[in-house]
Amino acid sequence: MNYAANVYPFRQDSTFLYYFGLDRPGLVGVIDDEDVIYGDDISLDDLVWTGPVEPLAEQAARVGVRRVRPLRELSVSNALTLPGYRPEHTLQGKPSIDLIRAVVAMRSIKDAAEIAEIEKAVNVTNTMQLAAINGARSWMTEAKVAGMLQAIAIGEGGNLAFPTILTTNGQILHNHYGPYPLAQGRMVLCDCGAEGPSHYSGDLTRTFPVDPQFTSIQRDVYQIVLDAHLAAVSVLKPGIPYKDVHLLACKRLFLGLQALGLTRGDADSAVAAGAHALFFQCGLGHMLGLDTHDMENLGEAYVGYTETLRKSTQFGLKSLRLGRPLEAGFVITVEPGLYFIPELIESWAAQGLHKEYINYDKVRMFAGFGGIRIEEDFLITPDGARLLGEPLPKTILEIEALRAG
Amino acid sequence: MNYAANVYPFRQDSTFLYYFGLDRPGLVGVIDDEDVIYGDDISLDDLVWTGPVEPLAEQAARVGVRRVRPLRELSVSNALTLPGYRPEHTLQGKPSIDLIRAVVAMRSIKDAAEIAEIEKAVNVTNTMQLAAINGARSWMTEAKVAGMLQAIAIGEGGNLAFPTILTTNGQILHNHYGPYPLAQGRMVLCDCGAEGPSHYSGDLTRTFPVDPQFTSIQRDVYQIVLDAHLAAVSVLKPGIPYKDVHLLACKRLFLGLQALGLTRGDADSAVAAGAHALFFQCGLGHMLGLDTHDMENLGEAYVGYTETLRKSTQFGLKSLRLGRPLEAGFVITVEPGLYFIPELIESWAAQGLHKEYINYDKVRMFAGFGGIRIEEDFLITPDGARLLGEPLPKTILEIEALRAG
Repeated sequence: MNYAANVYPFRQDSTFLYYFGLDRPGLVGVIDDEDVIYGDDISLDDLVWTGPVEPLAEQAARVGVRRVRPLRELSVSNALTLPGYRPEHTLQGKPSIDLIRAVVAMRSIKDAAEIAEIEKAVNVTNTMQLAAINGARSWMTEAKVAGMLQAIAIGEGGNLAFPTILTTNGQILHNHYGPYPLAQGRMVLCDCGAEGPSHYSGDLTRTFPVDPQFTSIQRDVYQIVLDAHLAAVSVLKPGIPYKDVHLLACKRLFLGLQALGLTRGDADSAVAAGAHALFFQCGLGHMLGLDTHDMENLGEAYVGYTETLRKSTQFGLKSLRLGRPLEAGFVITVEPGLYFIPELIESWAAQGLHKEYINYDKVRMFAGFGGIRIEEDFLITPDGARLLGEPLPKTILEIEALRAG
Repeated sequence: MNYAANVYPFRQDSTFLYYFGLDRPGLVGVIDDEDVIYGDDISLDDLVWTGPVEPLAEQAARVGVRRVRPLRELSVSNALTLPGYRPEHTLQGKPSIDLIRAVVAMRSIKDAAEIAEIEKAVNVTNTMQLAAINGARSWMTEAKVAGMLQAIAIGEGGNLAFPTILTTNGQILHNHYGPYPLAQGRMVLCDCGAEGPSHYSGDLTRTFPVDPQFTSIQRDVYQIVLDAHLAAVSVLKPGIPYKDVHLLACKRLFLGLQALGLTRGDADSAVAAGAHALFFQCGLGHMLGLDTHDMENLGEAYVGYTETLRKSTQFGLKSLRLGRPLEAGFVITVEPGLYFIPELIESWAAQGLHKEYINYDKVRMFAGFGGIRIEEDFLITPDGARLLGEPLPKTILEIEALRAG
C-alpha cells in the first residue's frame, strides 16, 4: 500500500451517492439554484492505466446535472458543507449543522428503491452466513472461513460492507479473525455484511457451535440472547424511542442471567444502574443504509439522538448509537448479545462494582465462555416492523440442524 | 467506511516492520545510541473492543528495544525522518536523503530469511494463479474469479498484496475486475499477489484464454511476449542495468511484432525512439519485498535509479520503476507485455507518431485484441538469477493443458 496507485479500495461518500449518484473519485457536488459538479476528466496518459472513462459532463447529465466545472474553480467560501466521510479526511470549510440535520432527515427515511437495495444486500449476507454455518469445520482457520465469505460478497459484484468478525472469541467485540483453527467446544460468532453494487449494506450476526451441537450451558445462554432479541423485535414500531427498546433487551438479558444465578436483585434498578453492561457492553443497534453505521460521519448526535434526547455517558449506553424515537421508513439493526470478558469481570469484581446485582463468584465461572450475538435488519413500518431479507435460521434447533447437515 | 472503527485494513509501514518488527498502529521508532519506541498501551475501555493486547514494553523487549515512551513525549525536531508510507500521510519533519539512501541500501539486499518469506508468498500466489487458470469459466464474472483468489490469500493467513487485476480487457493496465462474465474468444489477464503473514509479497501474472485454447493470433502474440520474457530472464545477473534488460525486452517485442507485420524498420532505432511503447507502455519490472513496489514510498529516484542514471521522461521509459544495475540479493519482477489500446493507437495514428516504425493499417486490425502479460519473480544471485517459488506453467501448451483439464 506504499504508492499512490496501490490504492485502498475507493469508497464514495454515501451522501454524495445519495444526492449525485456518481461513483468516481475527485468530485464535489454543489446543490444550489443550479446544481454543479466540480471534477476533471482523465488524460490520454491516465487512460493507458484506467481505460476509457465516460466524460464527466455525460455522466453528470445522466444524473440530471447539466453544469460541470473543473475542480480548480471550486470555492466553498460561501457554501454550507458537510463533514468528511472518513475521520482522517480534512475538508475546506466548517460543516453546517443545518445542512447536516436536513441530510439526516432525508437519508433516515428509506424509500422503496432503497429498501429493495438493502434487501438485496441482506440476502447476499444471508448467503455468506449460510456458507459459514454450513461450511465451517474445526480444521479450518478463522481466516479461511472469513475468506470464503468475502469471496461471496465480491462475487456478487460488491464487497464487504465492513471487516468480517468471525471468531471463537466473540466476547471481544471488534475481534476480526485469526490464523487459528476453530476450537472444538467453542462457538463461532460471525458478524458480516455484503455491500451491493449500489453500495447499500446488509449486516447480520449468527453464533453457532464449532461442534454439531451447542453444549448445555451454551444453549442456556444462547436462549437468553434469542429471547432478548425476540422481545426487542416485538416492540418495534414508530414512536418508541430505540433507547427504550435497548433497555428492554438489557432487562431481558439481566433476567435471563438471573435465572442462571449470575445476577440478582431488581432488574429495572440493575439496568438503570448499568449493571447489565458487564455482559452487554454495547448498543442494541444502529441505522443501516448506504453505510453500515448509516450517516455516522455526519455525527451520532444528529443521526441517533435529538435535541431533547442526548446520548448517555454511562458505560454501555454510551455505545448505543441510536436512541431516538423510531419512524416509519427507518432501517435498523437489532443485535443484542452476551459477552464474558475476563479482564472486565476481574476489573469490576476488584472494584466491587454493582455487587448488589452481580454474583461475581458465579460470573467468574463464565470467564472463558466467549460471546453470543444475534443480529437482524428491520424496516420500521407504519404499524410495526418487517424483517429484511429471507429469514435466516436462528433458533437452537435450526442452527444445530444446519451444523449437523 | 464512514466511521473510525470501520477501518481500512491496517498496514504497517514496511520500513518500520524491517527495523522494529512490530505490527500494530500508533508507533514511532527512533534508532539512536539507544533505540526507542514511542507508543501507548490500550485502556480497559479499548480492551472491550480489541481484546487484551500485550503491553507495548513487552512487545518492544521481544524485538530488542528496552526503552518505550508515551507518544506525547515524541519530538522529531533533531531527528532524521523518512517519508510517510501512504502518499496521503503527512508526517512531522523533513525526510532525510541520507537516511533514505541508507535504508534503501539495506532493504534492497534480501537476506535468506526474507527470501524464504517472499518465496512462501510467491507459492501462495501460485495457488491463486492455478485456481484462476484451472477454475475460471465463461459463465463466471471477473469479480467471481477475483473473489476466489482473495479467499485463498486470506485463508493462508495474509491478504492480497495489491488489488487483483483479473480482466478480459488486459490492455487497460490497472483494470481490476468487473461484474461481466468472462467473454468467450478473449483472454483473461490475471495479475495477483499474496501478502503473507510476515507481509512479504508475491506478484505474478498469467494470461490465458477463456476458451480451452488460444486462437491462432492470440498464440502468435503470446509467443512474442513469452520470448521477450525468456530473453530478459536469460541476461539477469549482477552488474547489468535493469534499464538494459528492459530495452532488450522492448527490442524482442518490437521484432516479434515486425514478424507479424505490425512494425517495421531498424529495431534498435525504433526502441531508442520509443516506438515500441505504443504496445508496451510500462516498465519491465520493479523491486519486490515487504512492499510489492518495494520501498517506493522512499522515492523511485533512490530505489530504482542512481545519481548518474536518472529516470527517463520518454513515454514508456518514464514508467520503468527500476533502471539501475542489478546486485546479488535484489528481488525483482520481470513482466513484459503487449497491450493494444484503441484510444492510444488512434491518437498516435492521428499524429503520425513514429510512422516510420509502425504499420498503422495493420495495427488498427488489432485494436480489439486486448493485452498479454507474463510475470515472474527472481532473486539475483552472484552468477545469474533464480526463479522464486515453484515453477508455474507459462508456455502455450502448458496453459492450454490446464484450461482443457
